[in-house]
Amino acid sequence: MAVGLTRPDKLLPIQGIRLSAGCANLYNSQRNDLALIEISVGSACAAVFTTNSFSAAPVRIARDHLVKATPRYCLINAGNANAGTGKQGIIDCISSCQALAEQTGSTVQEVLPFSTGVIGKDLPVNNICNKLPVLFNSLSDEGWLNVAEAIMTTDTLPKGISRTVEIDNKTVTVTGIAKGSGMIRPDMATMLAFIATDAVISRKALQDILSYSVNRSFNRICVDGDTSTNDACLLIATGASNTPAIASGDDKNAAIIRNAIADVCLKLAQAIVRDGEGASKFITVDVCGGASEDECLQVAYVIAESPLVKTAFYASDPNWGRILAAVGRAGLKNLDIDGITIFLDEVCIVENGGRASSYSEYLGQEIMRRDEITVRIQLARGMSGATIWTCDLSNEYVRINAEYRN
Amino acid sequence: MAVGLTRPDKLLPIQGIRLSAGCANLYNSQRNDLALIEISVGSACAAVFTTNSFSAAPVRIARDHLVKATPRYCLINAGNANAGTGKQGIIDCISSCQALAEQTGSTVQEVLPFSTGVIGKDLPVNNICNKLPVLFNSLSDEGWLNVAEAIMTTDTLPKGISRTVEIDNKTVTVTGIAKGSGMIRPDMATMLAFIATDAVISRKALQDILSYSVNRSFNRICVDGDTSTNDACLLIATGASNTPAIASGDDKNAAIIRNAIADVCLKLAQAIVRDGEGASKFITVDVCGGASEDECLQVAYVIAESPLVKTAFYASDPNWGRILAAVGRAGLKNLDIDGITIFLDEVCIVENGGRASSYSEYLGQEIMRRDEITVRIQLARGMSGATIWTCDLSNEYVRINAEYRN
Repeated sequence: MAVGLTRPDKLLPIQGIRLSAGCANLYNSQRNDLALIEISVGSACAAVFTTNSFSAAPVRIARDHLVKATPRYCLINAGNANAGTGKQGIIDCISSCQALAEQTGSTVQEVLPFSTGVIGKDLPVNNICNKLPVLFNSLSDEGWLNVAEAIMTTDTLPKGISRTVEIDNKTVTVTGIAKGSGMIRPDMATMLAFIATDAVISRKALQDILSYSVNRSFNRICVDGDTSTNDACLLIATGASNTPAIASGDDKNAAIIRNAIADVCLKLAQAIVRDGEGASKFITVDVCGGASEDECLQVAYVIAESPLVKTAFYASDPNWGRILAAVGRAGLKNLDIDGITIFLDEVCIVENGGRASSYSEYLGQEIMRRDEITVRIQLARGMSGATIWTCDLSNEYVRINAEYRN
Repeated sequence: MAVGLTRPDKLLPIQGIRLSAGCANLYNSQRNDLALIEISVGSACAAVFTTNSFSAAPVRIARDHLVKATPRYCLINAGNANAGTGKQGIIDCISSCQALAEQTGSTVQEVLPFSTGVIGKDLPVNNICNKLPVLFNSLSDEGWLNVAEAIMTTDTLPKGISRTVEIDNKTVTVTGIAKGSGMIRPDMATMLAFIATDAVISRKALQDILSYSVNRSFNRICVDGDTSTNDACLLIATGASNTPAIASGDDKNAAIIRNAIADVCLKLAQAIVRDGEGASKFITVDVCGGASEDECLQVAYVIAESPLVKTAFYASDPNWGRILAAVGRAGLKNLDIDGITIFLDEVCIVENGGRASSYSEYLGQEIMRRDEITVRIQLARGMSGATIWTCDLSNEYVRINAEYRN
């Protein structure tokens, strides 16, 4: 039911990155569920992880390894989150990293682990380790799409995109892949994303670019308001393009590459929403005229997370009263409701504290039939704004999540 | 699909209160949708209303009237919320109050209006006014259940309860009715509640008792996390029992009557959850060992509002990882996950940061098959606690809210 999403076109290789995927039998069905990413020596890496206190074993280990070494390999599995698994989860995670280190001749700290899937089941370490030789021997710079497919859980489509930009007349490429479709909300969601570029970027600048990009993409989406234990987003700069080094945001070419990376992140984040569990509509919530970005986000998320608003979109029902009620309960102090204007796409639905005089059910119905709709709230309290993306709430969402483990 | 809820037994009359209900054709189907409550002279009244900034016209008018006069009549309609209706909504609301004032020989400020139903449609004032003579002439102290039925919207059952307590060897009665089943969350929900007692209570003490009771009942429930524009809860003390007056919480009999009123509020609030839209399970979320009541409520609501947790309950799936993930993302600072214990009824599911060693899928499955389940979180951070009540999220919820206006 993905909205306006298709299989990625050919994903462009990034010199210095090789990838492979295979089946480690982590699902009952035969499907690829294990992936390997090799990162060339001399690359810089930046990462952001879930803010969930119950972060999964691989998140804790990856955080630790990133401090101690520059990563050479990512080991990623779907089908098992290795979360809520206590001390055994940590042991299992390190064991699989150790096996890959031995296979590849790297140190255990040079391996970053990532897991996604059901919480609370022990990681089948042997299944994973047994598959490592095959994966290692099939590494290829053409492996992006294979990996995008291997890391899917409830995703209906693989997610990936490439961008090229010119820096000093040389082409620089950014390619990213992601998975995620449920348990999605700000501060990272049940999502994994791996983005690489052949630009030359220092680790410090890379982390700044990643924070900038994530705050405008993965941290601005919402499917169901849940934040996972396993979210992670990794950004790699291999430097293989030999373009001038970017060491800070002030550097001449910093904005070019930052915007390219931010765009890749945004498209991946939107792809996650478009493939949201049970989604039949892609909704942009755009709040402007706020006293601060925070209060705009507050209003936007109340709308995006309201089951009543989401079911109205699902039903193509212009029940704009639910949007109005959601704005009203967002907790903004001294909100002057007479100043608020609400639009569905180009149609004004609320002004002067009630239904807009120009509004008609017919106009609302026309908008609601669309697959992609923007809700725009003008708060008339200031100059700040925020935009987030979400989807509707359908019977299919409930079915997927009620039957997930069966 | 109401869980453990049946039609109320006979509701006990309260001397000084007369009620009636009828059909004003606010729905397409023939059903009672208009109700009248008469309050005897000399009664005290207390009320709490929605915190939604887009409060409906009747909420604004009722607040205003309560300041200016002691109410003699409540005029309640279902089928139309008169919210999001701007200035016209205010005019319509006052018109209907004025008509009732003329019918009953009271002042317009002595009439409190209440509405519930679809947001954003003009109130059919003539339908309401035309019905007032019939309603006025059929007032009866036996009308409680009729009114409980007339104010229903998506409710599947009327909600009401009576309690009697002894004060100085005299029987004092408390009877309450409520409606509400969707758009339910703290700080009042799409719910109306009318509670009356024949005890003698000052207005000040009555407001204290109402705040106390609402904070342990209507403000502790959650169906879908939405807060309505129309919520209101009215508490009336007619004084007809001629028992000693209660002027403050320190008075000898204050605790007796306060507990009876709080119990009526709690049972009505739980009835709303039991009749939650599409509910198939009644879930108690009990968080203890917190550093403050606020942080316990924070954790409790994240669990109660998580679509993933709610769909797992619907599926009777002991996917306890979703509960663990919800606790982890509740935003508590310095949360020591190793200290947290989580129980489903009597079965420990999480301890030491992961699945409890004594837990088995079989034990979890046994609990999840039950209609009524308690999730108990022990945070091990302090001595505070909080309990809230919620229900599961089913296909039926989506169906009801997608088709609500059709």
